[in-house]
Formats: sequence, C-alpha cells, structure tokens
Amino acid sequence: MLAFDILEYQKRLTKTKQQMAESGIEVLLVTDPANMNYISGYDAWSFYVHQMLIIIIDEPQPIWIGRYQDANGAKITTWIYNENIIPFPDYYVQSSIYHPMDFIAEILKQIGQGNRNIGVEMDNYYFTAKAYERLKYGLPNATFKNADLLVNYVRIIKSEQEIEYMKQAAEIADQAMYKAVESVRVGNRECDTAAAIYHQMISGTDDYGGDYPAIVPLLLSGDNTGAPHLTWSERKYKEGESVVIELAGCYKRYHVPVARTVSIGKPSIQLEKIAPIVVEGLNAVLDAVKPGVTCGELERYWYNCLKKYGIEKEARLGYSVGLGYPPDWGEHTASIRAEDSTVLQPNMTFHLIPALWFDDYGIEISESFRVTKNGGETFTKIPRDLIVQDPFPFQEKGGIIS
Amino acid sequence: MLAFDILEYQKRLTKTKQQMAESGIEVLLVTDPANMNYISGYDAWSFYVHQMLIIIIDEPQPIWIGRYQDANGAKITTWIYNENIIPFPDYYVQSSIYHPMDFIAEILKQIGQGNRNIGVEMDNYYFTAKAYERLKYGLPNATFKNADLLVNYVRIIKSEQEIEYMKQAAEIADQAMYKAVESVRVGNRECDTAAAIYHQMISGTDDYGGDYPAIVPLLLSGDNTGAPHLTWSERKYKEGESVVIELAGCYKRYHVPVARTVSIGKPSIQLEKIAPIVVEGLNAVLDAVKPGVTCGELERYWYNCLKKYGIEKEARLGYSVGLGYPPDWGEHTASIRAEDSTVLQPNMTFHLIPALWFDDYGIEISESFRVTKNGGETFTKIPRDLIVQDPFPFQEKGGIIS
Repeated sequence: MLAFDILEYQKRLTKTKQQMAESGIEVLLVTDPANMNYISGYDAWSFYVHQMLIIIIDEPQPIWIGRYQDANGAKITTWIYNENIIPFPDYYVQSSIYHPMDFIAEILKQIGQGNRNIGVEMDNYYFTAKAYERLKYGLPNATFKNADLLVNYVRIIKSEQEIEYMKQAAEIADQAMYKAVESVRVGNRECDTAAAIYHQMISGTDDYGGDYPAIVPLLLSGDNTGAPHLTWSERKYKEGESVVIELAGCYKRYHVPVARTVSIGKPSIQLEKIAPIVVEGLNAVLDAVKPGVTCGELERYWYNCLKKYGIEKEARLGYSVGLGYPPDWGEHTASIRAEDSTVLQPNMTFHLIPALWFDDYGIEISESFRVTKNGGETFTKIPRDLIVQDPFPFQEKGGIIS
Repeated sequence: MLAFDILEYQKRLTKTKQQMAESGIEVLLVTDPANMNYISGYDAWSFYVHQMLIIIIDEPQPIWIGRYQDANGAKITTWIYNENIIPFPDYYVQSSIYHPMDFIAEILKQIGQGNRNIGVEMDNYYFTAKAYERLKYGLPNATFKNADLLVNYVRIIKSEQEIEYMKQAAEIADQAMYKAVESVRVGNRECDTAAAIYHQMISGTDDYGGDYPAIVPLLLSGDNTGAPHLTWSERKYKEGESVVIELAGCYKRYHVPVARTVSIGKPSIQLEKIAPIVVEGLNAVLDAVKPGVTCGELERYWYNCLKKYGIEKEARLGYSVGLGYPPDWGEHTASIRAEDSTVLQPNMTFHLIPALWFDDYGIEISESFRVTKNGGETFTKIPRDLIVQDPFPFQEKGGIIS
C-alpha cells in the first residue's frame, strides 16, 4: 500500500536527520499528519487523537505511537517494522485523567531518550499547548527545541513521483471545476454545486481514485463573494450573481488547488473591469517564475501590475502546496509575499491565488504551478479567465435545470 | 444567516460566563471552532489560521479576532457588533516573524485585560504549544488557567432547535448510508462508494442541504476492516468481502454519525457469529438509556453482554456528539466507558459505536441517540444489523454494475 518506493521514504528520513543534526536535535517528535505521512507513509484519519512519529537521530527506523485501534492501520500503511509500532490503551483517549503524552514521555524514558535534545513542532495544529506541558512534565531532563516546519522544509522540493501524483490531482481538479461550473445555474442550490464537486473529486478518474482534500470546496455566491472562507449553504443562485469556487484535486494526499469565478449571465460592471486585471497580474507572476527568483520578487510583479490600475491590496499571493491533511493544504513554508526571500528551485510547487476581496464582492482566479528547470509550468488546464455561464441552458429545449 | 435565535446565543453566553465565574476565569479565549460557532454563530473554514473569540466576563459582547480577509465572514455569520470584529493584517499568517498571538496579546492589553485571569483551551487542536508560549510572553501580568472543555460542557445538553437540526442530519445520514450500501458491489471501487456518500451527504434532502462532516466517511474493506480509521482507496470490492462504513449526516454543523457493516454476498463465519452479539450488546445499552444512569453504567451492559460470549475488549463505547468541525465530531466531554461518571440528562446526545476490531477483521454497527425524559431515542432508521448485499444485482437483467 506504500505510495512511494521505500528508498524514497528513506531518503526523506535521511534529509530530515541532516536537518535535525544542523539544529542540534537528537529526537524529533513529528505530530503534523502530513509530516508523519511523508516520512513513514502513515495515512489514516486518526489525528483527532494524539499520535506521533519519533525520529531518533542514531536509530535507523522511526517509531509510531498512537491509539491501540490504529496500530493495525500503521502496520498496513507504513514501512516501519511492527516492533516500532507502539499503541497506547484506549483509556488515554480524550480523558480528563490520562493524557497520551504521559504514555509517550514514559516510552521515551524507557528507551533512553529522556535526557536528549528533543524537537517538537511548536505551531502544529496537532501539538497542543497541553501536549507540550505534559511532555515537559514527563521529561524533566530533556531539552526541548522548536522544530516547527523542519520536515515541512524538507518537503518543499518535490520528487518526480510526487510531481506525477500532483499531475493526477490536477486532472481531478480540472474535472471537478468543470462539474462545478456546469452546476452553477439559476435555481440550483450552492449545496448541489458542492455535491457535484465532491462526487467528481472523490471518484476521481477511471484510472485513479480521488482522495479527500485538506480543505472543503469553498463556494461563495451573491453578497458573500467578499468573504473568502465561507462554505456552501442552501441558497439558490440568481441571474446576474457571481460565484467564487476554490477547490483542489487530491491524489494520494497530494493537492492541486484551483479557483475560478463564474458569472451567471452578464457579469457586473465591477467584475468585467477587475477580471482582466487579475488575469494580467497572474500572467505577469507566472511569466516571471524560474529558478533563482525569490518569492518576494514574484509578489512585486503582481503589486506593480495592480498599482498601474490604482489598486493596492497587501495580502499573501500564494504558498507552497503539496501533501496535506485537514485543516490546510498549504505547507506553511514559503509564501509568495513581499517579505519572503525563499529562492525558487526546480520542483517547488505553489498555489498562486492573488484574490481580491472587497466589502461586497470578490474575485478569485488562481493557478497551481511547479518551478521547472528554466521557468514554470501550471498544473490545471481550465481557461484562466472569468467564466460567464448561461443561466438557463436548458430553457429553449424545454428541459429542466438538472 | 444565524442558525439560532439570538436569544439562544445569549443564553449560551450567559451559561459560559457562569462557568467562567465558577472557575475564577475573567477572560476566556475560545479557539475551538465549534465553541466559537456555539457562542457567536461564526462559521467559516478559516481555522487553519489562528483566530479566537474573546469572552470577557463583564462585557456584554464577545470579541472576534481573526485574519483580515475573514472579518467579512464574521460580520455575515455572527450576531456580534461590527466594532467587536477585529482583524489582523495578512502578514501575521503563517509567518516566521509575526505570530497572531502577539497581535491578540497586544489587543488584550489595550482593552485593559492584560492582568486578569485568562482561560485558554489547553488541549484544543487550534491552540498550539506556540500560541500559548506567545500569549504568555505577550501578557506577563496575566494569570493563565486551563479552560479546556469549559464551553464543550455547556454544549452537552442540546436545545430543542439543536435536536431538530440533528434530526435533519439523521435523515441525511440514513440516505447517505443507503447510497453507500447500494454502491458496495463486486467490481466497484471504494472511492466510488465514497463519492456516492459524499454526493448524498452534501446535497442533503430537497428541504435542507447537507454540510461537510467533521470526519470523512471511513470505508474499510477486505483485509483492512480491522483498521478503523483508514480512508478509501481505488481497490475494487470482491465477492465475500465485508465493508465497514462509518459516516455522519451533518446539518448546520450538527452531526449524526452512523456505522454499518456490509457483507458482499454470504458473510464469513466470523461475521455471522459476531454480528448478533454486537446487536445484542447495542440493544442492551440502548434499553438502559435514561436520565440518571451514568455513562460508566451504560458501558457495563455492553461489557456483560460480551463477557457472556467470552469476549473481552476494553475500548471506548461512545461519546457525546453534536456540533463539530474537523478533525472530530465528538465533543470530547462524556465518553461511554467504565471510568466515566457523567449522569445522563434529557437531550444529551451520543454516538454509541461499540466496534470490535480484531487483527484481520472488524465489525461496526452503531447508533446515535438522544436521552429523552424517560429513556432514549435513536436518530437514524437504517436497520440495526449486519447488511448482506447481493454482489451482482444487475446480472440477471443483463445490465451493468453502476
């Protein structure tokens, strides 16, 4: 069931250990599910209970610690020896008495790691304030170091196999976006569009099944297009409204996000004016993508394009993307924004989403791309433009809106 | 857009403040998205960036603090005055330089709350170790107290409107489970079943659209039925296999989960033997549900039933369920297990999922229920049993497997 050759996992582990060594970390506690997957292959919706992968700098194999009932899943989905899969009893789960970190601290002591330099992912969703408190309490002789994003930065350059998975995710994203656009018709409900997206996203193509994306499809319509992270409702589309759709294709946990804005019938004057500016800015950034350029430099192409039209909006333009679990498909490393000095290298992958939100409307047209040897290459194929949709496509034929 | 009458939100806020007073907390920082929603109505997929609701014991309105681009969503979905919606600039987002908690600490100082007793949700997914460190650094004169689950315990007894939403979620759950069972046929892929579930779950019924559940559908088949939290793959079902399906209907963020096990054709000897025992145990627990009984006592009915058949498995049997966001629809308060002394009260709601996982197979048959005045009442209607599915339903008619 491994998604990659075992040698690829071992290479990732080696690179991680190099980073640990540079940071003076002897034991790394990996709690980010994407990082756990990256190193071990582990893939399950078990991250709502504390779990981790322990990487010890002088041990060949990581250790998986998690809930008793999830140990089977660890055996099935990882390349780790069964002896290194250590389950804790179920009474540790969401209890006011027992905490999984007490168990983990005890294990670390038992295997002689209690007095080492221990790296923890300080700002990861799955490493709570209490988890850290319990670990510090249980390991008074350890020295804790912030290892936030250590593995994420190892993930920033993708392998050929990872790019291949992203291309398959892109095919799913394109098809899901077409299904979404097709369902945006007067009288249809937002939830029906979301359902159409999900069906395509999850069934995938005939050749590869889809995976769940780390973020749900974001669907904004009518007065809500200026509120980017709302989800769908039961409201019905009306003629003349616009709909902002952001979704990702996901394959083997690799994401390719894409956003488009659809106008149901004739676009508003605002949208007609702003859409070509967004596309121009997007093209300016994409044309500038090549190894050696920094993320901050990329942002300036967008900034300068917008300035020409008298628009100034300071917001993050994009971010490194790839492997992910809820709640985010972004990798939390490089961001395309003024203050980010990350230098582009081949097979870095980004979601470029230079959205413009105003008080009462918004527009999103985005592209995911990878850096190639000499430039950049976008993943999806859907036309890079405002999409104008016939509001009543079946009316003349006497049909009904499906 | 509020899902509840404003008086209901105010009642929740009052109850929360009573709990704060009892715990000596003057300022409560609410980071659990379900708790934020419960108090304010806030509903958006923005929790991948730090955000919170601040409840000050002597102020009538909570304060929402979040990302700049999400302030519009807060204005749209909450009952909070616009003056109490405070956005932070985008350069605080996933930055190695700036942290949203620095901004929040500064605001708390500015409004004179910097030297008070501040409650934080220590073990919540969205309150990271770093978030706590930054807050403590920024508010050296505050006294921090663990307010984990404070709001969750206010949530434990549902209002009539909440029960109503759960009944609608149950209808969606039933329909999604029927769609799932229907698609479990020889030659179909797991991802096609997941897609069928999603389509139904999200489109909902004609009267109410579905919402995304906090956990994806869990689909285990073949050799993987003993690994409860794996998700779907591209593998095709074979005759004689069993498939474990756990899903939830979700409406206005309220969940009703349900699990069933499907045998494709004749069940294995193991399944045929174990299924009636699970149903008997389930019935024994459900028959015992009534106000005044404790969660620990409920568990004993299951334990004793299984013991009769020589089976001993110590695992959590169920948990309080309702409002939720990824990664969990469980409320993290009461659990149905031996050591839990929570006393059942009317309109508490639980997911009773006494699953049995063995090394190479597993079975799940579950029920969500609410405690009524005199007993209990299950939410979904799908028969409480092992489901045996015709593996080739369309063969005689010369059709194809759809």
